[in-house]
Amino acid sequence: MSESAERDARHKARMARKKALIDEKIAQAQDEYGLLLVHTGNGKGKSSSAFGMVARALGHGMKVGVVQFIKGAASTGEEKFFRRFPEEVSYHVMGEGYTWDTQDRQRDIDKAVAAWAMAKQLLNDPSIGLVVLDELNIALKHNYLDLDSVLADIGGRPELQHVVATGRGAPPALIEAADTVTEMGMVKHAFKSGVKAQAGVEF
Amino acid sequence: MSESAERDARHKARMARKKALIDEKIAQAQDEYGLLLVHTGNGKGKSSSAFGMVARALGHGMKVGVVQFIKGAASTGEEKFFRRFPEEVSYHVMGEGYTWDTQDRQRDIDKAVAAWAMAKQLLNDPSIGLVVLDELNIALKHNYLDLDSVLADIGGRPELQHVVATGRGAPPALIEAADTVTEMGMVKHAFKSGVKAQAGVEF
Repeated sequence: MSESAERDARHKARMARKKALIDEKIAQAQDEYGLLLVHTGNGKGKSSSAFGMVARALGHGMKVGVVQFIKGAASTGEEKFFRRFPEEVSYHVMGEGYTWDTQDRQRDIDKAVAAWAMAKQLLNDPSIGLVVLDELNIALKHNYLDLDSVLADIGGRPELQHVVATGRGAPPALIEAADTVTEMGMVKHAFKSGVKAQAGVEF
Repeated sequence: MSESAERDARHKARMARKKALIDEKIAQAQDEYGLLLVHTGNGKGKSSSAFGMVARALGHGMKVGVVQFIKGAASTGEEKFFRRFPEEVSYHVMGEGYTWDTQDRQRDIDKAVAAWAMAKQLLNDPSIGLVVLDELNIALKHNYLDLDSVLADIGGRPELQHVVATGRGAPPALIEAADTVTEMGMVKHAFKSGVKAQAGVEF
């Protein structure tokens, strides 16, 4: 056998073993219910990954609810885009800015409480397949919301509804309650090396 | 001063210092050019974050190109959704499946080479603001493509075009070339604990 044929044969054998393992795992995984996902960590992609899930859910014909707990100064591309589909996406920007921009703790708390009231409506609506709670973790980290009530409201949602909560510093109890948790770690960041935040990438 | 007024005052002082630091960093970051982003790691969110960037870019009126180097058996929600906008999104699914599904190395290589030819067209088109190279990292990891040529083609793209490459096992030279790299780390995964992959979340 030539060297490349040998390599191809080894590749095939390795991949056959891998396929058997993966097929077995998939066969074992049969439960279907609404998942709670948490995206946390200091790297990029926590919110954009949630908005990718919105696109995915819309592709599958689901309705989606979005509550943004923190709004930056710039209007975001995702907001502009998903507002094109008012029948399919219920989009709510409830926060005013990062807490170091607003500088007023009581005002931040009031905004977070109002945002949670909106989130609760979405979490009570079985016609909504996915609820995005963007930057919820920040509001929890600063104790703007009561963690136990938030967990109870999420836990009481319709059986097949998915929820994704984003933001740095997700509290341990939220991670404990979640089905899937991803820690976005920053390996390298253009912004740190003097590059301006840019439309389409950062907002 | 009451205890809560004191806490509010401390919060305000801390946030004022934080705002000054962040404003200074933003003022220093003035360069504007197309970024190369890499999403890698074993956690969820690598592709969905790229698709969130697609939504963001469309919200800012950009045109977007997508090449998927690996296609799972199930048709994906993001494909169904973004194909609704043929004027704005040039969407190409070029791969056939994970390599453990196809079991044929030469066939995988041929598909990857064809996918790269399509990617090159997008990387030569200055009207496209964002190019998504979904699962490119896997094709590179398996040496289906010549890494140096890939890096040269990416490096030669139009000045303001952003590129995002996703997939586990991004090679060190790609990470070196990137402006922003996020490692999606798996903290917890529902699939591992026996939950079926679900529409809107996993695909």
